[in-house]
Amino acid sequence: VALNVAQPAASPTETDALVIGAGPVGLFQVFQLGLQGIQAHVVDALPYPGGQCVELYADKPIYDIPGLPVCTGRELTERLLQQIKPFAATFHLGQEVATVEKMAYGRFAVETSRGIKFHSKTLFIAAGVGAFVPRSVKVDGLDFFNHTQLFYNALPPFDLGGKHVLVLGDGESALACANSLAQVGNPLHPQRPASVTLMHRRDSFKASDDTLATHHALRASKQLQFITAQPTGFAEHNGQLTGLQVVDSDAASHLLRADVVLAFLGVSPKLGPVAQWGLDLERKQLKVNTEDFATSEPGIYAVGDINTYPGKKKLILCGFHEATLAAFGAAARLFPEQPIHLQYTTTSPRLHGLLGVVPPTV
Amino acid sequence: VALNVAQPAASPTETDALVIGAGPVGLFQVFQLGLQGIQAHVVDALPYPGGQCVELYADKPIYDIPGLPVCTGRELTERLLQQIKPFAATFHLGQEVATVEKMAYGRFAVETSRGIKFHSKTLFIAAGVGAFVPRSVKVDGLDFFNHTQLFYNALPPFDLGGKHVLVLGDGESALACANSLAQVGNPLHPQRPASVTLMHRRDSFKASDDTLATHHALRASKQLQFITAQPTGFAEHNGQLTGLQVVDSDAASHLLRADVVLAFLGVSPKLGPVAQWGLDLERKQLKVNTEDFATSEPGIYAVGDINTYPGKKKLILCGFHEATLAAFGAAARLFPEQPIHLQYTTTSPRLHGLLGVVPPTV
Repeated sequence: VALNVAQPAASPTETDALVIGAGPVGLFQVFQLGLQGIQAHVVDALPYPGGQCVELYADKPIYDIPGLPVCTGRELTERLLQQIKPFAATFHLGQEVATVEKMAYGRFAVETSRGIKFHSKTLFIAAGVGAFVPRSVKVDGLDFFNHTQLFYNALPPFDLGGKHVLVLGDGESALACANSLAQVGNPLHPQRPASVTLMHRRDSFKASDDTLATHHALRASKQLQFITAQPTGFAEHNGQLTGLQVVDSDAASHLLRADVVLAFLGVSPKLGPVAQWGLDLERKQLKVNTEDFATSEPGIYAVGDINTYPGKKKLILCGFHEATLAAFGAAARLFPEQPIHLQYTTTSPRLHGLLGVVPPTV
Repeated sequence: VALNVAQPAASPTETDALVIGAGPVGLFQVFQLGLQGIQAHVVDALPYPGGQCVELYADKPIYDIPGLPVCTGRELTERLLQQIKPFAATFHLGQEVATVEKMAYGRFAVETSRGIKFHSKTLFIAAGVGAFVPRSVKVDGLDFFNHTQLFYNALPPFDLGGKHVLVLGDGESALACANSLAQVGNPLHPQRPASVTLMHRRDSFKASDDTLATHHALRASKQLQFITAQPTGFAEHNGQLTGLQVVDSDAASHLLRADVVLAFLGVSPKLGPVAQWGLDLERKQLKVNTEDFATSEPGIYAVGDINTYPGKKKLILCGFHEATLAAFGAAARLFPEQPIHLQYTTTSPRLHGLLGVVPPTV
């Protein structure tokens, strides 16, 4: 499924709804907003939609999605992307929401870690275990190069031609990124990197079968290097990162040349910046009501694993319900003048129009 | 999918859980109870599982089931039946729950309209718009023959050999029943009816394409009669029903011979007997909490379209969530000595055992 991926713009994007998190619940939030006639932008820390379902469970079976006796995390994601296609949401991937500020007239000013700005009337925090804080490389001082030579969960916005690229991680996104760089370089840029190296502490990965097969083929043809090691320090020259100091599986220390480091270490279960937004919390979860899953701040909703309420179970199917009632809540807030009637996708011509379908007449 | 269909027994069946309603939410209730290690019996007024999804929407597309961009009511039902297969629930179809009485030790004595008795520790009312009250034939005095020559939403428990059978209705179950009687007679009984006639006020039906095609083929080959008419009275001889007085589309009155009348007129949106069980109601809906969807009576849960709570939307996907939390509530009630931990179907060996699956090792 092709996504609309936004390019950075200088002025804030005005929108009715911003969904933070592109896991299954965030994707279904887009669907339910769409049924209410509300178009959404979506931000996620990972470089693709699907959240943990793709990063950790891409090939693993899930058995408790109603009506899907068995499906993998990737299949669930693809099905949801197909389902939300009529609503043409815009995705902003490989970046976290860094700041949220209340504006006049009930809007929120939002800025991501890559400088994309929104003015949104509603926010939906569908961040799962954490869409805010990428797991960092544990090397003192390395964060100085963040956004110039060090990137988290994203490709750099410049050509990698002639550069030595080091990719860190063992999940789907780390392997998929290393494969893609070794095969075609940075998409949209013509030059190939001088070298692409994947580094992880063990020669063992959590990626899908396809990605893993490509990885091993690229290693066999020497298009991709792999090293079993952990970073301990870095080298620089005139303020430019030149490499990482690493210790390998035989406890030997090396200097590994690197002009660019791309870290795909997943996301941290920390709440991160959201803890600073002044929302009511309970044991590091966002407190919501069960009527429309609004947080303590009107206009900000929390759905999926990040919220809490009496009876809460961290199950994807519960998040689907929460996203649905949150969309009704947002519609009531955005269109206070018009009553929000429950309509059925089987029978409502309005919903058929929004979905772009022509059901059979009976 | 083959169902376990119970035969009537003299003594009450002891069970941990009884689900009232075999629509999509009732079926998913069986699934979630199964994941908690709780086996269920299921009662439904219609002669097959699926509820309104099969009776009214068998071939019509539904677009808002998460992960199923489009599916028909029948497909959703088949998918859910597949999903609950590991849990071997027993179905009691074509009958309504008539009485519920509280017993000692937190159990409930339940009896259906066909005399099947249960002692159940928990009840799940997943009755949608109504699993309790079949829509009746509007002919004064005809109900005298109920369960002897008049049957609602069910085949009679005796041989129809040599009898004139009149089927009333225009939905999936009326047509499927008339087709089946015309083709093979009453299943499990060897003799064929003398005649099978379907009657509805218009020559226009709400059945699936397959069922409709068979209906027209049987009419063409004269194995099945159809009459456009409405009942106005009945004829009897020595206390035996002999026929219905009907008025046809030309306003002419006839006496239509009938030894047995099978009415498939759907279910009434009335609460029926459940209104007498002493449960808290609000505008004819059952009031529940949103923590475990228990009614005002501990041990009785209400899920799907029959319940109400702040924010309630009558959507199938919301019923799936409600059934899930109700299963956790029931597990806590049935097994008070053991803590109920949330487990994931992707990773839990206990759930894999209950589901009877061997997921790939990674």
